Amino acid sequence: MLIIGENITVTSRIVGDALMKRDPKPIVDMARAQKEAGAHFVDVNIGPATKKGDELMEWVVKTIQEEVDIPLSLDTKNIDAIEAGLKVHKGAAIINSVTGDKEKLDILMPMAKKYGSKIVGIALTEKGVPPDVDSRVEIAMNIVNSAMEHGVPMEDLYLDPVVLPVAVAQEQVHNCIEALKVFKQLQELMGLPEAPRTTVGLSNVSQSSPPELKSLLNRTYLTILLSHGLDSAILDPLDEELMKVVKTFDILTNKTLYAHSYLER
Amino acid sequence: MLIIGENITVTSRIVGDALMKRDPKPIVDMARAQKEAGAHFVDVNIGPATKKGDELMEWVVKTIQEEVDIPLSLDTKNIDAIEAGLKVHKGAAIINSVTGDKEKLDILMPMAKKYGSKIVGIALTEKGVPPDVDSRVEIAMNIVNSAMEHGVPMEDLYLDPVVLPVAVAQEQVHNCIEALKVFKQLQELMGLPEAPRTTVGLSNVSQSSPPELKSLLNRTYLTILLSHGLDSAILDPLDEELMKVVKTFDILTNKTLYAHSYLER
Repeated sequence: MLIIGENITVTSRIVGDALMKRDPKPIVDMARAQKEAGAHFVDVNIGPATKKGDELMEWVVKTIQEEVDIPLSLDTKNIDAIEAGLKVHKGAAIINSVTGDKEKLDILMPMAKKYGSKIVGIALTEKGVPPDVDSRVEIAMNIVNSAMEHGVPMEDLYLDPVVLPVAVAQEQVHNCIEALKVFKQLQELMGLPEAPRTTVGLSNVSQSSPPELKSLLNRTYLTILLSHGLDSAILDPLDEELMKVVKTFDILTNKTLYAHSYLER
Repeated sequence: MLIIGENITVTSRIVGDALMKRDPKPIVDMARAQKEAGAHFVDVNIGPATKKGDELMEWVVKTIQEEVDIPLSLDTKNIDAIEAGLKVHKGAAIINSVTGDKEKLDILMPMAKKYGSKIVGIALTEKGVPPDVDSRVEIAMNIVNSAMEHGVPMEDLYLDPVVLPVAVAQEQVHNCIEALKVFKQLQELMGLPEAPRTTVGLSNVSQSSPPELKSLLNRTYLTILLSHGLDSAILDPLDEELMKVVKTFDILTNKTLYAHSYLER
């Protein structure tokens, strides 16, 4: 499973302050800690970043990659900021949270192709989160078609079925599982040469729930989604109980070899 | 999900002693504690019970049900002991761990029919655990056919795909998941009027693993199996973390209504 560390986000006060003051230390420390905890990518969410987003993304990409050898997932609605980040990024990045709006896809898919990036297409549009499973599938199919049209290989495309908080939209949490199941059949349904991958923003499920429930909700939901073939997740790799579940899932499904010490690997 | 409490088993020293001395207290206390923790049935495993097994089962069924209002799951290879238990049992019992051997099925299916019991058919035979998924499915189909032949309703039949310890038979742990998936399709595959249910002996998965891994393995495996439609499990209802996962699964799959206090229900 591809693990994308979620902790560098402008919504965290520490990160928000560090981004504003261009203070490298908190951000570099956070990237390093997530890598050491098992993240394969580190997400960098700078928010809408309407003012000088391009400068900010360039700074944060360079700042992290100068100190920590890890690829990044770039997360902002500011398309110029995405490209500014990709220009200075070492290795293949991820373009995160790309909605299924045609005008966005027509810019970001060619950008993914140009820079050899992976790209996360999320099953929602500017209009919002679709109310049912079928609409999510329709958006996902549009995203797949756009990737093919612009020559992005299926192995670089991650479809996100949209995780919402169980405390505010319980039915949608179930819809997300059902949508994932259909996404996993898209190769067959659409006659694709290869299967697109899947990912989720895991912690959304426990947003608005009390702190003592968050990890329990996250790790149970992750296990359910992994059982249905989820390939990746944006999650908190510093949650030790969650990471234990990731390793245990691989043991129980015979993906990694059991040893009494498997958690220490 | 139907929860069968596993704790009254002759392999526990306390239970073994109490059964030998016909000491009701430890057994009744254990039944009560499991009921209070959420068990719908309490398993009573008296082992092979070759000597006076019938007297022992009659005593234990009466002893528990005099004090605790809960139905029991009767678990022994001694067929006379099963019938002695059913004769005095109040309400519908479960006949547990019935292997797919024709001579056993020909006695126990009619017994389930006669007493209106549920019956757990496990996908192994006297020869042992089948090495692959297909052989488990074949045994399960024999069990289903025997149930139909003897007029046991499908809703009373639970198929058990056989859980083995991950520490000693890792590949079999994965085979069990795959077998469960096929069992869930048997209604369609066999053209049955109703679907048979499914259950597992959950704690087997963590047998021979270090104590600190047991609950983690059990609850992760349970979540995987529930994701594939498992209807019931024989498990330790006194494991609080495990029971939290049971409740959380129902929340995330929209089976019970979310409230911040859902764990306290």
